[in-house]
Order: sequence, then C-alpha cells, then structure tokens
Amino acid sequence: MNPSGFITTTTDFGHRGPFTAVMKGVILSRFPEARIVDLIHDIPAQWPPEAGFWISKSYAYFPKGTVHVAIVDPGVGTERNILMAECDGHLFLAPDNGLLARLLGQRDATLYHLDDKAIDLLGLGNPSSTFHGRDIFAPVAAELASGNVRMADIGKPTTDWIPDWIDEPDCQEGRINGTVVTVDTFGNLMSNIESTMIANMTSPRVRFAGLELPMIETYGRATPGDYLALVNSFDVVEVARAEGNAAESLGIGRGAPVTIIDG
Amino acid sequence: MNPSGFITTTTDFGHRGPFTAVMKGVILSRFPEARIVDLIHDIPAQWPPEAGFWISKSYAYFPKGTVHVAIVDPGVGTERNILMAECDGHLFLAPDNGLLARLLGQRDATLYHLDDKAIDLLGLGNPSSTFHGRDIFAPVAAELASGNVRMADIGKPTTDWIPDWIDEPDCQEGRINGTVVTVDTFGNLMSNIESTMIANMTSPRVRFAGLELPMIETYGRATPGDYLALVNSFDVVEVARAEGNAAESLGIGRGAPVTIIDG
Amino acid sequence: MNPSGFITTTTDFGHRGPFTAVMKGVILSRFPEARIVDLIHDIPAQWPPEAGFWISKSYAYFPKGTVHVAIVDPGVGTERNILMAECDGHLFLAPDNGLLARLLGQRDATLYHLDDKAIDLLGLGNPSSTFHGRDIFAPVAAELASGNVRMADIGKPTTDWIPDWIDEPDCQEGRINGTVVTVDTFGNLMSNIESTMIANMTSPRVRFAGLELPMIETYGRATPGDYLALVNSFDVVEVARAEGNAAESLGIGRGAPVTIIDG
Repeated sequence: MNPSGFITTTTDFGHRGPFTAVMKGVILSRFPEARIVDLIHDIPAQWPPEAGFWISKSYAYFPKGTVHVAIVDPGVGTERNILMAECDGHLFLAPDNGLLARLLGQRDATLYHLDDKAIDLLGLGNPSSTFHGRDIFAPVAAELASGNVRMADIGKPTTDWIPDWIDEPDCQEGRINGTVVTVDTFGNLMSNIESTMIANMTSPRVRFAGLELPMIETYGRATPGDYLALVNSFDVVEVARAEGNAAESLGIGRGAPVTIIDG
Repeated sequence: MNPSGFITTTTDFGHRGPFTAVMKGVILSRFPEARIVDLIHDIPAQWPPEAGFWISKSYAYFPKGTVHVAIVDPGVGTERNILMAECDGHLFLAPDNGLLARLLGQRDATLYHLDDKAIDLLGLGNPSSTFHGRDIFAPVAAELASGNVRMADIGKPTTDWIPDWIDEPDCQEGRINGTVVTVDTFGNLMSNIESTMIANMTSPRVRFAGLELPMIETYGRATPGDYLALVNSFDVVEVARAEGNAAESLGIGRGAPVTIIDG
Repeated sequence: MNPSGFITTTTDFGHRGPFTAVMKGVILSRFPEARIVDLIHDIPAQWPPEAGFWISKSYAYFPKGTVHVAIVDPGVGTERNILMAECDGHLFLAPDNGLLARLLGQRDATLYHLDDKAIDLLGLGNPSSTFHGRDIFAPVAAELASGNVRMADIGKPTTDWIPDWIDEPDCQEGRINGTVVTVDTFGNLMSNIESTMIANMTSPRVRFAGLELPMIETYGRATPGDYLALVNSFDVVEVARAEGNAAESLGIGRGAPVTIIDG
C-alpha cells in the first residue's frame, strides 16, 4: 500500500472536550503534512459495532492509501489487542474488540496485532491507561500514514480477530431476520440487511414495529407522513418516514429486529 | 472565476453518521488538494431556507474563488433541478428548491442548471436515488473547485430558480413585519429584517412575544437577565437575553413573527 | 517563536450556525496556508474557565509554534482587553476575562494586551460590537500564525491578567477540596485536582456525592456499574462509572465539590 497522507478518525468521544483534537495534535506533531478527516465522533458510547458498520460502508469513498483509525474502546488499558489491517488498498487501525469484524468478515485482509516493540520503536513513552487514542493510536496512525513504518515493522502477523457484537442477518428462503444497526439525524433506521440478500426476492416487504412496508425507490416518492422502506445509498434496507422522523415517532432504535418477507 | 481550491459544505446531515465525511472522501479522491471547510451541518432537517440564509450571510468571508456546496434536499431522487451559480466571485451549488433564493434575489449571478450530460462527462456512474450529496454534489464541487470543468461545460444556462420558503419582510412606513429565521447556540433569535430596512427609523423598537424592546449596541450593555434587541454581526435584527437564553425562556423559535415599529 | 502555520480554535459557539466557519474563512482569506484544527466548540455558553482548563491541558500536544485562539467572551464589545501570550513555544489569544488564567498561573509567559493600533495596522476596518471572534481574533490569529506580525507589533506589554473564575483546590495535610471543571461525553466528571497534589498521599480516597471511592488505574478494572475514581489521562482526578454515565446517574455536574482524603 502507498500511503496517501489521508487519515480518517472515528470515535465515541463526542464533541464535549478536546479528545479528538489532541489526537490530531499528536498526529500533526509527528506528520505535519497529514490530512485528517473526521468520519464520525458520535458513535454511541462504548459500542464498537456501529463504528465498524460505518467504516466498512465508508472507507472506499476515500483515496486509496488512506489510514482509517477507529477508537471505541471499553477495554482501554486492559489486555485487549490492537488490530492493524491492510484491506482493499486501505489501512485500518482499531482495538481488537469486534470493531473491524464486519469489514474483515467480508474482505481479504493482511492483519497484524500491534507489538509491544512499537512502544520503543516509535518512542511512545509511557502511554496512559485511559486514553490510547492519543497515546498509541494517533502516533501509530501518523507513522503509518507518513510511510515511516509499515505494519510488519510494529506488529505480529495474525489471522484472528474478535467477532462482531451484532449477529449477521439470518437468511431463510422467503424470510430474512436482521437488526437495526444505526439511526441517522433524520431518524432513518438502517438495518444490517444488504441489498444482495434480497436480490432474489420477487416482492420484498419489510415487517417492522407492527408495520408492513413495500420497498420504494426514494423518500420523495412517498406521501409525507407515510412510513416507507428502501435500499439506501449504503446498500442496506432502511425504514424511514417521508418528511418525518421514523425513530422518534415509532419510539424504536438500535438493536430492533427487522424482518423481510417475500410476496 | 478563478477557483481558490476552497470548498465549504452546508447540510442538514447532523453528526450522527459519516454523511459529510464520505462527501469529503469523494471530493478528495477527485481533487486531493481541495481544502474543505464545514460551514454548518445542523440545518433543521429538510428546511432549505436556513441554509440559504447562512450561505448568503457567510460566503463573503471566504477567499474569492471558493465553491459553496449546500445540500438540504427533501426532493432528492425526484425531478428537482440542481442549480449552479457564479456570484460575486464565488461559486454556489445546491438543489433548486429555494435554498439559493435569498442569495440570488439580492445579487447578480450567472446561473446554470446541471445537465444530464454531467453524469457521463464527469463519470458519475449510477448515482443513488437518496444521497446526491455524495454521488453528484461532491464530485461536481470537486471538479469545479479544481478548475477541471466550468459551469458551462456541465450545465444549461437559466435565469429561473425556485423562490425562498420564507417571505421577505413586509416593510411599511413606520412598521416592519419579519420572521425569525434561525436560533443560535446562545438562544439568540435572528430575524430576516436587515439593518438597511430600519435605517430610516428614528427610534426603532422591537415587538416580540409580548415584549417591546429598544435596540442597543451589544449584549454586555444590558442588565443580566434582561431581554434586548440589536442589529447583530450579520446585519439583521436579533432578540437576545443578556447572559441568558431568549429562545428557551420565551419558548419561541424559528418562524415566529418579529415586528419593528418606529417611535 | 517560529510560527508552525497551525491554529487551534476554541469557542462556546456550538454547531448551530456558521460562526466558527466564518472565522476560518477570515483566517484563510488572510493566510491561505493556515492549518486550522477545532479544539472544542461546546464550551458551556459564556463560561471561560472550562475553555481555559482544556487549553492548558491540550496545547502541548500540538506542534510548537501553534497559535491557540479561544473565544468565550461574555464581555464582547465592552472595554475588556484582549490578551496575547507566548508560553512554552506556543501563542495564545483570548479575551482577558480569566480564560487564560489557569495556563498563565502555572507557567512563564510573555504577555501583551492587544493595542488599538492593531485595528489600523491589520486593516480590521470597523469591527462589529458582537462578534470579535470573526472581526478581531480571527484576523489577528491569521497574521500571528503567518509570521506577518509579532505580538510586540500590535500589543502593549503587560504582566496582568484577570484571574480564573474557579478557585484552585484547597490543599491541606491529608485533605484536598477541589471542584468539577468539566464533564465529558461519557459522563466522566473531571476535577481540578492535579495528580501532583495527591502524590504524597498514602491511600487517597475520593469523597463525592455521598460516595467514597478508592483510586484505580483504568475503567476496565472496575465492575460494570460501579463508580470509580482515577487520575485520568490529563493528570487530574476524575470520577466515572464503569460502562455507565456518572454525571447522569448521580445528577451532578460542573461546579460540584470533590474531596480527597488520605487513608
């Protein structure tokens, strides 16, 4: 992989504090030419699967050679590993807690666990026990993105990773059971059911929260106020409300079951 | 217009998802040198006039040659047009749904509607029906900002645009009736009444929510807790509460009527 | 100091409006090569001490030569001074209202108050009375960061500054009384008690909200649901709840007293 100099950052740190900012300061102190793009910082606290969903769905829109660093890390300071992955011409760096499972389950990748020798080799000093984003992930991302080091220099090859916290959809003939993985600002409920899973269905209908919804092409095709289902722009089944907020009006969010039946 | 390489982005996408981030990824994949500045992403969902208000009030603070792209787009995927405008040395790109009406109503501009030939010319592939921000606006903004294409290459000249969703203030002798167009983090209520509209008044007073307020120069001139009115730094009449939150304590927000009387 | 070209911005402007964006536009119009990093924009409205806490804790993670501009400015448009400080190889620019007191109380610095001559020298025109962030701080930050001017060119030397709004902890033998200065996205409550203040204690325990908590090393060492205390990654005593939100479940926030006793 040829580093592009771009780095994306994904966290559950929110905006009430300089947490992502100091990570950027650390990156820029080591690699002043780095171009950093915030991917999301509003992942629900300590919930890795949503970070993993969005990274798997977003990375390919960035230039090849981008380093994607994601920190949703309830086990910070304990013995959990840090995973580095090269996949589809991009680099990924995250705690090994299921965050990257969705990405890696669907693609070939070269994997390393960060080795303790990285501490000395990169001069990481004495990392805190509570903020590895700043003390480990940021400097490692900077050095990988600058091309100063490669994964093999600071990691041990591995083929293992912790699985996703959310089960893959259960796909039966004529019926798929999936799960809401995220809700956006509009209150649209996105499931983990991929368009490929319903490709063979003749007339898929979505059962959700007591509703049964046919699938349409875009929001503006529905009558304002109506609930609707569609394959969204990230290629998963989504439940929405035309000119409304489906999550709020249904009182339903992440983790809710979504069923698709055919006919 | 000579592109400066700067692009601003305005949306109602909020922060709970990578929506603006993937737009940046698309821009940087086509034009890696782009310098992107977030203008606002907290426009109320599917409410173009607030985006238009802020763009008309903000663009001139950026370097000439900046491309301002705004996506508040309830009609995404239907037949609505996409508007490109060159105005005062800046470029603007938005759905033609009233978003740019305020800007264009007050200034000379050269206008184009994006032509279907842009799809082929720019290699936009098969855009989704639900996320034109990523699939159309971002690549078009990148190509305009890089100077690779000009509006005339990808658009049809036009002189039409959809009008603003909010009426201009009604200006009578000695009385102006306007509307609250936005509320900021401090709870300050900004109207669409421009300072020029009250320039001839001897002693303008603001009637709002049962209050009648004289106009003062700055927040710190009022007694803490008092409501006040002033011409704010964006040159419109604003109602505020000194060291307080006017919108919250009055329970009033966007769309509320604001009247100014003289004497 | 050799300017690095980096600028950080800290405000209480939040995200509902283009306020920080137009500051960036002004900076980039004067100094197009500027590299701007958002530090925080969610400081509680008109509460300088939290901005000052975070700046003093964050600046050193950025490259030397960075200009840190902070605007939490209830007295905008009144006679309050604007403070410029060079300290530890970084430049700081803020209203002289206590915001920089914490930084300056702990470190040597060279200080200037912005002089009225800056208005002419930098061509600041006729600044608004209500948005000095855009009309004064942004252009001054741009010119300092570009190296076009130095503090001495636009300021009067001073050794005075307005003190912090929050008292330093009261340190007695075997007992320290401090204050919660900020709450992060996870609901962790950070005090102003520095690790050095408890360094001599044999067995420090934190008394807070009726709880008495021993200090542990990291969140993952506690049983989920338990309250805990630790020295956090910014070297201050923090009260947290393992896999929970301490601020919410205790109903306690900024300003609350925190006591540490020994033994």
